[in-house]
Parts: sequence; C-alpha cells; structure tokens
Amino acid sequence: MRIAVDAMGGDNAPKAIVEGVVMAAKEFNDIEFILYGKEDAIRKYMTDETNIKIVHTDEKIASDDDPVRSVRRKKNASMVLAAQAVKNKEADALFSAGNTGALLTAGLLIIGRIKGIDRPGLMPTLPVVGNDERVFNLMDVGANADTKPENIHQYAILASYYAKFVRGVKKPTVGLLNNGTEENKGNDVTKRAYALLAAEPEIDFIGNVEARELLNGVADVVVTDGFTGNAVLKTIEGTAMSMMKLLKAAIYDNGVKEKIGGALLKNGLMDMKEKLDYSRYGGAVLFGVKAPVVKTHGSTEKESVYFTIKQIHEMLESHVIDDLVTYFETKETPIED
Amino acid sequence: MRIAVDAMGGDNAPKAIVEGVVMAAKEFNDIEFILYGKEDAIRKYMTDETNIKIVHTDEKIASDDDPVRSVRRKKNASMVLAAQAVKNKEADALFSAGNTGALLTAGLLIIGRIKGIDRPGLMPTLPVVGNDERVFNLMDVGANADTKPENIHQYAILASYYAKFVRGVKKPTVGLLNNGTEENKGNDVTKRAYALLAAEPEIDFIGNVEARELLNGVADVVVTDGFTGNAVLKTIEGTAMSMMKLLKAAIYDNGVKEKIGGALLKNGLMDMKEKLDYSRYGGAVLFGVKAPVVKTHGSTEKESVYFTIKQIHEMLESHVIDDLVTYFETKETPIED
Repeated sequence: MRIAVDAMGGDNAPKAIVEGVVMAAKEFNDIEFILYGKEDAIRKYMTDETNIKIVHTDEKIASDDDPVRSVRRKKNASMVLAAQAVKNKEADALFSAGNTGALLTAGLLIIGRIKGIDRPGLMPTLPVVGNDERVFNLMDVGANADTKPENIHQYAILASYYAKFVRGVKKPTVGLLNNGTEENKGNDVTKRAYALLAAEPEIDFIGNVEARELLNGVADVVVTDGFTGNAVLKTIEGTAMSMMKLLKAAIYDNGVKEKIGGALLKNGLMDMKEKLDYSRYGGAVLFGVKAPVVKTHGSTEKESVYFTIKQIHEMLESHVIDDLVTYFETKETPIED
Repeated sequence: MRIAVDAMGGDNAPKAIVEGVVMAAKEFNDIEFILYGKEDAIRKYMTDETNIKIVHTDEKIASDDDPVRSVRRKKNASMVLAAQAVKNKEADALFSAGNTGALLTAGLLIIGRIKGIDRPGLMPTLPVVGNDERVFNLMDVGANADTKPENIHQYAILASYYAKFVRGVKKPTVGLLNNGTEENKGNDVTKRAYALLAAEPEIDFIGNVEARELLNGVADVVVTDGFTGNAVLKTIEGTAMSMMKLLKAAIYDNGVKEKIGGALLKNGLMDMKEKLDYSRYGGAVLFGVKAPVVKTHGSTEKESVYFTIKQIHEMLESHVIDDLVTYFETKETPIED
C-alpha cells in the first residue's frame, strides 16, 4: 500500500510529519510513503528509510488560505500533488495535517466522492471516558454546514462500516445526536433522519442520544449534522482545556500543601491527559471519498502522525472503502471475514 | 415584588425548594413568596416566615409528563397554578425546578410572549473559567429546536438587555456561535443571522465565535439556535463530569502516593468544582415572555434555589422586562439609570 503524505501541512511541518512517517515506515514494511514538499527540509529528518520517496515541490497551502481557491490555483502545493497522486492511482491514501478546508476540498474535487454518496463527512474517533477498551466515532464534525436527513443516514452507514471493519466492533450501535432521547424529539432534520435510520437494516440504530452521554460511550457511532458535530467537538476540546486550566490553578495558585499534592498526583494527572488525547486513535477521516483521506490536528506531533498512519494502514488493510463502493453501487453487504 | 413558586418541581421537592425559599425570604424582605403545592409537606420546612404564603394543591406535573398535554390538562398542578398567578397579576415572576418542557409551555401558553417576540429562548448564565469576575449568557439552549435567523437576532437583543441591566455589563459584547470565526463561515441560518446582527445598532456584535472559546469568555453574550445551544450546554456538562470522573480515578485508582496527593489537593479541587457549578448565577431564564420565568436544575439543592430567587429579584429590580416590552413595542432604547 502506498500513502501520499502532505509533508508541509501543520504547524510543526515538515519536522513532526517526517519524524512520524519515519516511525511508521520502520514498523510497517508493507507501506510505501510518498512525501510531497521541500526535499532538503524533509531529508533532514530522514535516515536511510527505503520505503520513503520524496517528490519535491516549493509550493504549499497555508493554514489561512481560502480552501477552494488555494486548491484550484496552487496546482503544485504539496497537498494538491498528494491528492493528485491518489486520483492517478499512484497512491492509495492521503494524509495531511494542513488546512482542513483545503483538504476537504482536495478530497472532494480531486479524489472525488464514492458513487451514491452525496456528502462525505468528517469523522474523528473519540475516547470513552472510564473505559480504555472503547472509543466512538462522531460524524459529521464539519465537512458540511448544511445537512439533509439523507446525509445523516449515509453517515450512519459509513461510520458503521468503519466501526465494524476497521475498529472490529461486531455489531456497532448507532445513535442520533438529539436534544432528548424520546423518539419524537428534535428539529426538523433530526426527526426526518430518525425515520430513515430506524428503517435502515444495515445498521444497529439505538435511537436518540444526548450530548451529555457521548463520552460515556452511549453508542459506537454517533451521527449528527456537521454544524452541530463541529460545535460539540469544539465544546469537548474547550471544556477539557478549561478543566485542565482549573486543575493547574488548583495546584499552583494555592498553598504549599496543594503544590505537594499536585506533585504526588503527577503520574495520575499525566494518565488523565493521555486518556483524553484522542490523537492516539488517529485522525479525522474525510469519509465518503474514493480513498482514505485523513487529517490530524495542525499542532500534531510525530506520535499522532504515527498513529494516523497506523489508522490509514488499518483502513487500507480492511478494504473498508472497496466494501463501501460495492455497497453503494449494489446495496449489497460484504460478507464478513 | 411577588414570586410564584412551584414548590413541587424537581427531584428534591418540596424540601430543597422550600428551604431555598426560606433562605431567600430571610434576606429579601421586599419579596412576597406564594408557594404552590402540598401544604403540609411544604410547612414542614418552614418556620415563622411572614413573607411566605402557601396555596395548597394536590396535583403536580411529573418530570416525564408530556409538556403540552400536562400543562393543558393538569389545571391544578402546582406549576400551572403558579403560572396562572403571574398571568392574573397576582405574582410578578415564576420559579420552578420541574419539567423543563412543561415550564416552557406554561410560560408561552399561560404567561405569554412579549409583543414583537416570535420565539422566547432559554438562557442560562455560565462561568468564564479562569476569571471569577466574568460570566456569559448563552441563548437559546433548547426552547426552540427549529430556529430562524430572526429568532437569533431577537435572542441577541434580549440577552444583551439582560447582560446590561441585570448583570450590569456596560457594553455587552455579542458573539454568534459558528463553525469558524470568519465572516463568511456557517450554515444557512448563521450566515443570515450574521447579517442581521451586524446591522443591529442595539447590540455590540463582535462576529462569529467558536465553541472552543466559550468558557474562555470570548463574549458576554453568545447566541445560537436552540438545537446547537442545547448540544453545546450538554456537552459542557458531560465533558466536565467525565473530567471529574477521570480526576477521581487518577487519585483513587493509583497508589498511596496519589491518594495522599488527592487529600492534599482537596481544597483546590473543591474550589474547582465550585467554579464550574454555574447554579450560583441562578437558573435558566425563559426570556421573551411577559414576566421572569426561571428554571433551575431538577437536582437542585436549597443553595441554587436561593441563588435563583436572588436572580429573579435582580431581574424584577432592574425592570428589564418592562424595558424589553417598551423596546419591542416602540423600538426605543430605555435611558440608562
């Protein structure tokens, strides 16, 4: 399998990207990497990896570039070239830590949607707090601001396939994010989405779920419109950051006693931070396009790059996208291995 | 001023409600309370307060009753009688810790909307983390699942009035919750709401704000549709609870060292919990109806009842609703005291 890597995307590029790729290249002999970006800057962080190739380009998309315009005009940007490589079947998947909007655009315009999918969505894997064995997928977290019930219906099928074939959950439960658990709750979109999900035999729909229960692992897959999903994901991040800030203040802005307490608790608190860091589950997948297109945080470090490569490896190994292509073309469920 | 209290609403009613009212009755001699509910059960928690009157009724609305049906049919329910008292000018405000949907219904159907307000919204006051002096108002958190740009425009005026005249913020900033800070971001509703807010001279609109920044105090007032606001509020609550769970695990599920650390940190952690407990700012206001209608959490304790009464006292003292009635009738801004 071949992964096209935008080596210039993200705040710590190319260092963090290349170092993460090198980590992954050592572990996964079956991956060939093609790194797009400034060759000399990239080479600095490489040693003698034989499964990493560099395609040099000086151009890149900045984090504040207009997504559509930059993808259209910067034809030699590292991200655009990487997407072109996937389109031209020179690579099987695309990885970037760069401009999210541009990556969505490149995924849609260059790589293209799976036939039958109207709106690919963005899907991260998030932790279930208090249960290290479990995670959940939330879809869509912002690929589409305006969402139809039919889109949410497709997210449910897409994310269920991911949970089943990539994460290995036998019968993933699907919840619809809503403003109450009762069947008749919701806005116009969720009420109509509920009916579609309830009638869908391909998924294990468990009904409406509330945002309060997400991190408790209320479902293996939670579907929502991209506007709400975006707000929920950012609220989780913001609240977690605020809590860490309060915790720091509780330790350092009090007396000596609290400082000692904090020191004794250090390992426990590091564990806590690690449990919340969902980058170890990989990046957010732009799901519904013809190849794995995966995005990590702009502030990514080499470890999260490594974890995201691992995730792409699992996606490619599982053939989840081929299965989805088949399903949406023929509406036939793949036979489980 | 006279406050009609639904003494039977909430998990800890009537005990917590009556005890909270008694606390408030001692402090606020200018308030007369009318408590609706089971007289003998209420009297158990009273002493010799002269400014508390009881109106006996055996009926009440349960937390799982259908909101509209229960308000229509249970004509003698404590909440319904309290709302009727406000409608009949026997009381100036309504307090309840009961069924939220029923309270919204009672507020809308019995007390009624301010002329010119299409959709009253539900508005809590939330803490700014790391700054004890500041709070912010979020509106709407779920009174309306389907929201038009015009509703969000009215929320901005309503919540600005609250921040100014009740909270005493001289020039409250208003942010529109959106999926990015750039002007052109958003879904169809927020894009159109942005235009209305930007053109509104009555408010100090600072543009789009992201959910990640809410608890950092990005604006004094944040407006959003009720579906998103509901999801965001519940995500804040859920994430905070999950973090406290992780923190407990960090202390108790590790070694002796961590347990001692936790003991030393105890006061700091209690502070932390208190800072997040937004009930000290009062309850959520159903704002846009003809009188203060305020709801506290169903699991409320006497302290939050007290704080909510204090909040209602401030609302009545500020004449914010009279000012809003005047503004929406005449579009004339009240002269500041």
